Amino acid sequence: MTSRLPQHRRDRIVIIGAGFGGFQAAQSLAGAAAEVLLIDRHNYHTFMPLLYQVATAQLEPSLVAYPVRTKLRGMKNVRFLQAEVKRVDFDNKLVDLGANLIPYDYLVMATGTESSYHGVPGAAQQSFTLHSLAEAIALRDHWLSCFEQAAFTADEVERRRLMTFTIVGGGATGVEVAGALAEWLQGAIRRDFPDLIGWGRIVLVQSGTSLLQEFSQRLGNYAHRKLASLGVEIRLNTKVSAISDARIELDDGEVLASATVVWAAGIEAAPPPMAQPPRQKAKGKLAVQATLQLVDHPNVYAIGDVAYFEQSGQTLAGVAPEALQQGVTVARNLRRQLQGEAPQPFNYFNKGRLAIVGGYGGVGRVAGINFGGFIAWLLWLLVHVTYLPGYRSRLLVCLTWLQNYVMGDRAVRQLSAKLPDR
Amino acid sequence: MTSRLPQHRRDRIVIIGAGFGGFQAAQSLAGAAAEVLLIDRHNYHTFMPLLYQVATAQLEPSLVAYPVRTKLRGMKNVRFLQAEVKRVDFDNKLVDLGANLIPYDYLVMATGTESSYHGVPGAAQQSFTLHSLAEAIALRDHWLSCFEQAAFTADEVERRRLMTFTIVGGGATGVEVAGALAEWLQGAIRRDFPDLIGWGRIVLVQSGTSLLQEFSQRLGNYAHRKLASLGVEIRLNTKVSAISDARIELDDGEVLASATVVWAAGIEAAPPPMAQPPRQKAKGKLAVQATLQLVDHPNVYAIGDVAYFEQSGQTLAGVAPEALQQGVTVARNLRRQLQGEAPQPFNYFNKGRLAIVGGYGGVGRVAGINFGGFIAWLLWLLVHVTYLPGYRSRLLVCLTWLQNYVMGDRAVRQLSAKLPDR
Repeated sequence: MTSRLPQHRRDRIVIIGAGFGGFQAAQSLAGAAAEVLLIDRHNYHTFMPLLYQVATAQLEPSLVAYPVRTKLRGMKNVRFLQAEVKRVDFDNKLVDLGANLIPYDYLVMATGTESSYHGVPGAAQQSFTLHSLAEAIALRDHWLSCFEQAAFTADEVERRRLMTFTIVGGGATGVEVAGALAEWLQGAIRRDFPDLIGWGRIVLVQSGTSLLQEFSQRLGNYAHRKLASLGVEIRLNTKVSAISDARIELDDGEVLASATVVWAAGIEAAPPPMAQPPRQKAKGKLAVQATLQLVDHPNVYAIGDVAYFEQSGQTLAGVAPEALQQGVTVARNLRRQLQGEAPQPFNYFNKGRLAIVGGYGGVGRVAGINFGGFIAWLLWLLVHVTYLPGYRSRLLVCLTWLQNYVMGDRAVRQLSAKLPDR
Repeated sequence: MTSRLPQHRRDRIVIIGAGFGGFQAAQSLAGAAAEVLLIDRHNYHTFMPLLYQVATAQLEPSLVAYPVRTKLRGMKNVRFLQAEVKRVDFDNKLVDLGANLIPYDYLVMATGTESSYHGVPGAAQQSFTLHSLAEAIALRDHWLSCFEQAAFTADEVERRRLMTFTIVGGGATGVEVAGALAEWLQGAIRRDFPDLIGWGRIVLVQSGTSLLQEFSQRLGNYAHRKLASLGVEIRLNTKVSAISDARIELDDGEVLASATVVWAAGIEAAPPPMAQPPRQKAKGKLAVQATLQLVDHPNVYAIGDVAYFEQSGQTLAGVAPEALQQGVTVARNLRRQLQGEAPQPFNYFNKGRLAIVGGYGGVGRVAGINFGGFIAWLLWLLVHVTYLPGYRSRLLVCLTWLQNYVMGDRAVRQLSAKLPDR
């Protein structure tokens, strides 16, 4: 298939990835003196922080998937292409799509991360992850399928296995999934599956000495107490050593019979394959200068989670505001380069950090102040619904949360996968 | 897997299918002196009349998929089982699920219909249909994928093929799909894909002499004019003779290069496999007595589209109100049988009929009066949102329609399928 891109007269900026960084960069380049091509494997921007709510049957998938083309309406110099990038070639300034080669003058890599399994046998094959909408839907389907099977089987060992849910990783993702699953079991599942009352078991496995280690010890302890009060079993200082179809082996010798493993215990950078691999730092992230340019390729930028960036001796935390601010900076630097000026360094302005736990509890650190409880929980919801793209999604998410948190119900429960024979 | 159904002390009624008929029958049997088991392959009731709006990116799938278990909350004698029925055995009163045999005292078959392809080569393999939520989502994905591919290809013949949409069947389904697709192309797609303006082509193939033959000739002509004004090409008195990957052959010799065929040109009954197949009538429908019982099996009922029922010499039309009323009747007859009384005949009360066309136009026949236009269109929407199960779905559907019909936009555009290499 031959490409139908316009004749290549003006400079062309190719952005790979329509996550927080790349999507912001494309929007900030509207009206720039260059042709911008945004490439993503999906035709939507995924609002990652709410994926766990898709997985736990709270939100419709479309509410966290904003159509890229809709956001780009009216930006005459910005185009979108849904495609999988097979390789980038810095020396020849080409993006290889398999059937087409796209030449570029400037390149922005914003491809984010994927799960890292630390070599645990079976983890990649047997775990569910939350890096994409498809993965979130697959996890929701899996859970609904476990409930349906558990309600029917007369084999109590099998029912216990189906109703035991293991979550690996005690960071923000692991904690929010454990909390939302616990709320689900105590609310809608109790009412839809009265036979399953008392059978649900959630085990949260954390390698560190406390939960939410990006926050203070006190807030980690708060999250711990909160999840424990929701019935979550928490194993600190514990690692998973192997996973097979029916069994999860922990490094303290315990074996869990659990039909579900959610892996939230590590990430690594997911750059596209590169003909000339640049220097990579911790977790495979690409080394960038203070201006976000690759060291040896001043026309190539890396932003968001795929880039390794230190500020005041600290690496960035991998949260959305960092990527958004880098998207703005990379657009400003590209505009400078197009005018023959030198790019300027990126400087992250940290507004604070929040995490949701569950049971109307959250934790936060804003302006140096640590706080946990209902205020943090409410603030988390408010901040996320504010940053969610699209008025429609914001309205519907608010309505859905009213139903979830006031009426204690869950809306989205259709199971799209097939069950085994009964 | 051994079943976990309660000990079989009271009479057991098994209902196969949670469509309009079966779902209604289960609800009407709440509190009856029998144990009721509702079986469906999905864990949700599909609101079929709005599936075309899922396929045309108007409604979220979850809005037309009501969780069966949620509706059955509080009905102590009604249970639900998500399973595929492999066979029913009238002589031994057994429903075979593959891994389990479910004994019954009374059986209600409410399994609806599937597409009938009238032996057209390639039709079953190459067509999209609208009998299930999964099919509606697959069609939406396919369309979005056609748009993305057409926007990128430089091959004009290929672009024309991708943007040619063929709909086979000029009944209610074919007309509503053609109208909704035309609205979509003129609205959101124009804005999201400015490169595709002028490329869209919709061909509606109808074997009969007019559209909507279940209505009067005048209303058929109205629908014809309305669709034509939306840009739909209508071929009357035309049949499809063969379909292959890239080509649709019509019986008048014309060949269409079209990447999409939607098949809405016929249905046939879809009963479960039966050990003792009963008498079948037109379209494979099961012959029933006036009481909806199978002729040779007084403890077995068939309702909805899987059953053949004549009233005043006319067969039923295959619409939701018929199945709903039969669901009520079958529940009443089962209660009578449980008390040793004789079942009573079914009598359909016809409140009228509506069809939506598009472009704010619809047609209707209520109390013997035929009418077409905006009022029929509005009435169609009102009736369907009223019958939609669940307050939440009703509210969200109304909000979504405001966006669709007032702002001319479409909300649900994430593409879940993978595109070919670009």
